Amino acid sequence: MRNLLLNICYDGSRYHGWQIQQNAVSVQQVFQEALFRVIGEKPDIKGCSRTDSFVHARQYCISLKTEHSIPCERLVGALNHFLPEDIAVLNCREVSPDFHARYSCKGKEYIYQIWNNPVRDPFLNHRALHYWYSLDEAHLNEAAGFFVGTHDFTSFCTMDARERGNMERTVTKAEVKREGDLVTFTVAADGFLYNMVRIMVGTLLRVAQGKLEPEDVKRIIEAKSRTEAGPTAPPCGLFLNRVFYEDVK
Amino acid sequence: MRNLLLNICYDGSRYHGWQIQQNAVSVQQVFQEALFRVIGEKPDIKGCSRTDSFVHARQYCISLKTEHSIPCERLVGALNHFLPEDIAVLNCREVSPDFHARYSCKGKEYIYQIWNNPVRDPFLNHRALHYWYSLDEAHLNEAAGFFVGTHDFTSFCTMDARERGNMERTVTKAEVKREGDLVTFTVAADGFLYNMVRIMVGTLLRVAQGKLEPEDVKRIIEAKSRTEAGPTAPPCGLFLNRVFYEDVK
Repeated sequence: MRNLLLNICYDGSRYHGWQIQQNAVSVQQVFQEALFRVIGEKPDIKGCSRTDSFVHARQYCISLKTEHSIPCERLVGALNHFLPEDIAVLNCREVSPDFHARYSCKGKEYIYQIWNNPVRDPFLNHRALHYWYSLDEAHLNEAAGFFVGTHDFTSFCTMDARERGNMERTVTKAEVKREGDLVTFTVAADGFLYNMVRIMVGTLLRVAQGKLEPEDVKRIIEAKSRTEAGPTAPPCGLFLNRVFYEDVK
Repeated sequence: MRNLLLNICYDGSRYHGWQIQQNAVSVQQVFQEALFRVIGEKPDIKGCSRTDSFVHARQYCISLKTEHSIPCERLVGALNHFLPEDIAVLNCREVSPDFHARYSCKGKEYIYQIWNNPVRDPFLNHRALHYWYSLDEAHLNEAAGFFVGTHDFTSFCTMDARERGNMERTVTKAEVKREGDLVTFTVAADGFLYNMVRIMVGTLLRVAQGKLEPEDVKRIIEAKSRTEAGPTAPPCGLFLNRVFYEDVK
């Protein structure tokens, strides 16, 4: 049995996230159908994370087990042939049998894009949040700094998911930068709670609006209460940017 | 009577070019409908150029005459409200009565994007030509250099348009650059013949394939024959980037 690790990339605008579900098209379903056309099998496909509807991925990792002997390079070419234009397989390699796209994952990096101009950019539709008003990225970056470290992020998790155990995560990077009118929030951590990045962004936008000060982020984390944080920002500006593994062999 | 100059920006993926036509949706038609909803008039709208189906514009200029007293800033806001997401009005100002978006235009700059990687980029669908094979941008840039200057560009004009008079144009810039896997061809001129940029790109790709040498471009220009140049490259990678006017008052 071969264990394959594939890196894919997708524009999530048309998809209701990664995970297969009833009555909605998911990336996993479309990927599974393309895979079936290539190898004639429907193996259990492990994704590195759930992603919300309409969220994008510059890098998303998949692992799957198959007896099929197709060379990795040919699998990439064939999958790209059958996949729609908004999903691409970047590469594929064989890994040890115990590798699992989700359980072996050591961390991830997300980027959230904000288009900060009174007029929308037609080329960023579905790829950035459009924020009309002036936005001081240095001020937001100061607020983002409070996310860094090991904290209980209950305040930054959608309520429904609260019972799921350990809410502690270690954020290794949280930065707000500007390039022209595009403001980006980059955040890396060993793991993310449900809607964590989007609630972080919603909270940063409260800072932008002057409704919160940067140091309020510290208080909100300590409160361990979802109602203290800002609203959940829309999914369209969110990109899973990188997925980290240790010593993939 | 006020004469208004508007700069717009659009993702051309859904549109059959600027110009109104039967049985196909054009940017001009959609713009005219939005304008009618704002000012209740359908004035004659002058565009700075025809653009082909599926071509994009980072800057496209429009002029129109109206008796309506709506302030420019409010017109921008109202048009953006009624226009679809893939078209945006950047700004608007009043200009002298003799200004005409097409006849007053002194030059334009186009950019053609080529995604040069064996795997497509889902975020560049409809926004770049996907070119699989290796591509030496320095070699292509050398070829592009031969476009610069005042030449009869008959070889770089779709046949149908040949009878339309003076085929001489002055190219002031023609450069090929690479940023990672994205190769761009930037070309500026006082005017462009029908399909001129796309045929230039088709010719550059012949150079990339080793079927032509950079210095062949000189010979092709001198031949004044469409059949000597390369094929017309697809429209999706083409962006009208800038439009130049002299002393707009």
